[in-house]
Formats: sequence, structure tokens, C-alpha cells
Amino acid sequence: MTRESLSGRSSPRPGGRSARVQAAVHAAVQALSQELGRSALTMPLIAARAGVTPSTLYRRWGDLADLLADVAVARMRPDMEPPDTGSLAGDLAAWSEQYLDEMSSDVGRALVHDVLAGRAPVDGQPVPCRCYEFTAAQLDTVLARARARGETDLPTTDALVDGIVAPIMHRLLFAPQAPDTAWLHHRLAQCLGRPVAA
Amino acid sequence: MTRESLSGRSSPRPGGRSARVQAAVHAAVQALSQELGRSALTMPLIAARAGVTPSTLYRRWGDLADLLADVAVARMRPDMEPPDTGSLAGDLAAWSEQYLDEMSSDVGRALVHDVLAGRAPVDGQPVPCRCYEFTAAQLDTVLARARARGETDLPTTDALVDGIVAPIMHRLLFAPQAPDTAWLHHRLAQCLGRPVAA
Repeated sequence: MTRESLSGRSSPRPGGRSARVQAAVHAAVQALSQELGRSALTMPLIAARAGVTPSTLYRRWGDLADLLADVAVARMRPDMEPPDTGSLAGDLAAWSEQYLDEMSSDVGRALVHDVLAGRAPVDGQPVPCRCYEFTAAQLDTVLARARARGETDLPTTDALVDGIVAPIMHRLLFAPQAPDTAWLHHRLAQCLGRPVAA
Repeated sequence: MTRESLSGRSSPRPGGRSARVQAAVHAAVQALSQELGRSALTMPLIAARAGVTPSTLYRRWGDLADLLADVAVARMRPDMEPPDTGSLAGDLAAWSEQYLDEMSSDVGRALVHDVLAGRAPVDGQPVPCRCYEFTAAQLDTVLARARARGETDLPTTDALVDGIVAPIMHRLLFAPQAPDTAWLHHRLAQCLGRPVAA
């Protein structure tokens, strides 16, 4: 199964009934989170706000943790291409600085927490795998751009996920302090085998 | 604050009342998990089995997720030194193979899930940071041993955490498949700048 088909399966047919329900439920979760705080959310409360029955929610999402995971992963889907700075090293620095920035914010940390708290697959795929696909697809784009520029000696997508994304996420989840930009540039240099401009 | 003092703070004075309560509560969680399954656990059930009042649990652990996180991290504390194979590369291969093996098991995955689901600090430290300290301390031991053998050109503990532990944990949490030993040896070789014997 290709990366594209996996990502594609995560959204129902646009405009269909299932897509409308999903949109209403996601909007209800976001609105209620802001009004009441996330710890106050319940399935009946979300159903009432979205205008669906609670059994619709249980049937599609299983339980509250799985619903929150699905909403979180939708919010983590990148909504733009990685910035094009003219070089692989520059693109990776720009993309990973932005990734670190977003993931280490309170909102980003809460989204990651929700994604990892989900248990059941949604649309056949464990929810956290969709985050993996998102970041791999972004790094694919950066590498394809470098290839098109004629840059050589390129790392693989997997090497970049393991060498950059993984230590960022691991430190955010487990380390006492969030990593800083100097640390990030050091990691990038390790991955690329050459220094990265600050 | 040193790594040692942080680890030390995670356990109350041995033999004291607080340590006895903690031991009883941890034992109750493990027994009830095996008998009823983890999803059936509640604070009153755990309190009854441990012979304490529910308010004792709420006062010390906050809520169920935080209590389960504390129990999980105690079970993740390494109970032996990393194996001594006679070389840094061998020690790292042996330690990280065992780490990958344990963390990718059903039990290991459930423990990591519980650790990350905890919100409140226990004894002043966020629970996941204690996992970070455990692995860093094990890698410190491996590096100190290499230094004592006269091995040179050693990586830092942080480089090993970022280069080996982080991608293992990131893949276990986010990737569709658990990594295999060939992948692990490739990561080790990247970290050490030389091949690692299979």
C-alpha cells in the first residue's frame, strides 16, 4: 500500500454525508474545547453540539480518546508546502525550525498528546501513523526539490525522519526541556554530513 | 540538579509509610490489571485492593492516568546494568537490541502509552522525563565503560539518545511497523561513524 493511498483513506468522500458529519463533529470539538476546556468534553456534549446522535459518534470513533485523536491529527495535517529556500540544507533548516516551533507550543503538545492517546484505528490506520505520513510527505517534497535542482548525495526520507523528526519528537515527549535551534542545527549537520547555516 | 538527584527523588524513603502505600498501590494496579484488564481499573477499585482510602490516591496521584503513569514508569526502571561485551559498539548493539525488543512488546507499548498519558508531575518531575533519565543513565554506564577501556572518539550520551533511542521510540509510537535489527544496526553505524557487527 502506498503512502498516498494511506493518506487518501483518512478522509471520506468530500461533500458526502460522512464528510459532513465529520466536519460538524470536528468543529464541535474545537468550539467546545475553547468554551469549556478539553477536560470537560464528553461524547453526549459533542454529539449535541454537532447535531448528531451519540451513537453516531460511538459507531464511527469508538470512544472519546479516539475521537479527540482523529480531530488532533486533522489539525496536524500540513496546510502548505515546505518553504523553498533554494537549497536542501536551507529547506530542511526552515522546515524543521517551523516543525519544532509548532510541536513545542502548548497547542502542538496537546495535539500530540491527543494523537497518542487514541487507541483504535480510524479508517483502518492507527492515528499516529497519519502524523508519520504527513512529515514523510513533507520531507519527500523537500528531497524531490533538491533532486530537481541537481543536488547530489541526498539522504533518504527515512534517514531524515529518524535523524531530525524523531529526536525532536522524542525530546518534546520525554526530555525535561524542549530542544533549541542550536541543537536542531547540530542534528541537521549530523544528518547531512555538513554544517547548516544558522 | 544532577541526573542522579532527579532519579533519586522518584522514590520515597524506603520502609517509610509513603513507600509502603506506594508499594501496595503499585501491586494493586498490577494485580487488578491482570485480573480485570486495564480498562476496568478505577481509583476506588485500586484503593480497596491496596487497603487505602480513595482520597489517599487522589491526594498523591491526582487521577487514574497519573497513577497508571507512575506505575508504568516504575516498571520501566532498568533492573540491571547494560551487558558488557568488551567494546562500545558491542555494548550499544546489545543494549539497544534489548531496548527495542522490550519496548516493541505488547507490555512495553502499554507501559509507554501509560507513561505518556500521565499529565501531572509525580514528586516534582513530569513522569516521561524519568524514562529519559533511565535510558541516559544506562548509556552513561556504557560510555564510562568504553572510556575505562581506553576507547577514544566517543559520542556523547545526548548524541546516543538522539541517534538511537529517539528513532526507536518515534517509530514505535508513529510508524506503521516496528523497526527491525538491520535498521537498528544501520542507526548505530550512523551514530558511531563505523559499521556495527550483526
